[in-house]
Amino acid sequence: MTFELDHRLKTDGILLAESTDYILNLVNDSRYIWLVLVPKDNGARDVFDLSESRQVEIALLYNRIGKLIMQEFEGDKFNVASLGNMVPQLHFHLIVRRQGDAAWPGPIWGVGKAMPYDEAQLSATILRLKDATTLIC
Amino acid sequence: MTFELDHRLKTDGILLAESTDYILNLVNDSRYIWLVLVPKDNGARDVFDLSESRQVEIALLYNRIGKLIMQEFEGDKFNVASLGNMVPQLHFHLIVRRQGDAAWPGPIWGVGKAMPYDEAQLSATILRLKDATTLIC
Repeated sequence: MTFELDHRLKTDGILLAESTDYILNLVNDSRYIWLVLVPKDNGARDVFDLSESRQVEIALLYNRIGKLIMQEFEGDKFNVASLGNMVPQLHFHLIVRRQGDAAWPGPIWGVGKAMPYDEAQLSATILRLKDATTLIC
Repeated sequence: MTFELDHRLKTDGILLAESTDYILNLVNDSRYIWLVLVPKDNGARDVFDLSESRQVEIALLYNRIGKLIMQEFEGDKFNVASLGNMVPQLHFHLIVRRQGDAAWPGPIWGVGKAMPYDEAQLSATILRLKDATTLIC
């Protein structure tokens, strides 16, 4: 069965990479380095819907991505979350938080308005995300 | 080195169980079934500060707890997050979300005021959390 990315994730995100098992998006909000990792497991809503070996693979992956983006963007705190109350398709938010960012120290969801990247910012950001992006392949 | 639980986690939570490696608290807010899992790894702020084998152990544990509490409390969506912008000591929020709960469908942090458990509610809730609590031992 072909995997179909939820349309809201598609709309909010810029595709960084897609592999057999994952989609990695950058949320189009330049206020944060905010990635969304989607395991391509059809029908999964909660992570425990998957086998434990798959859970392990996914957890190690988001932690590895987190480590790289925190180093590259000199974050103060890594935020990782699987919420999915609005978009039930299983996905993980991976966010580099910095002291003084638009939502600091609260969570980022629902705070103010997204500031879309301009073209130059976007290509510079994608370049800096290259190592993290490679992890899903 | 003795592990010292952050005082804010101590203040907001009711201790469900403590083992050699973990503390499991119930947040004193009866609007949600909201647990906080604290790995007793001194100095850890982000999960990738730990070895990957420890990361795996922790991820499997919070997913197993999540599965049990979602079943027991008939949740609609499991929310799991490690944020820690205010309390940098590594900890994981494990929350049973229900359609129509006080923050639905948004995240729960910073929404309204906590409704502390009364004594009867609390003992009934702790009883229903027994199987999940046992997982950390």
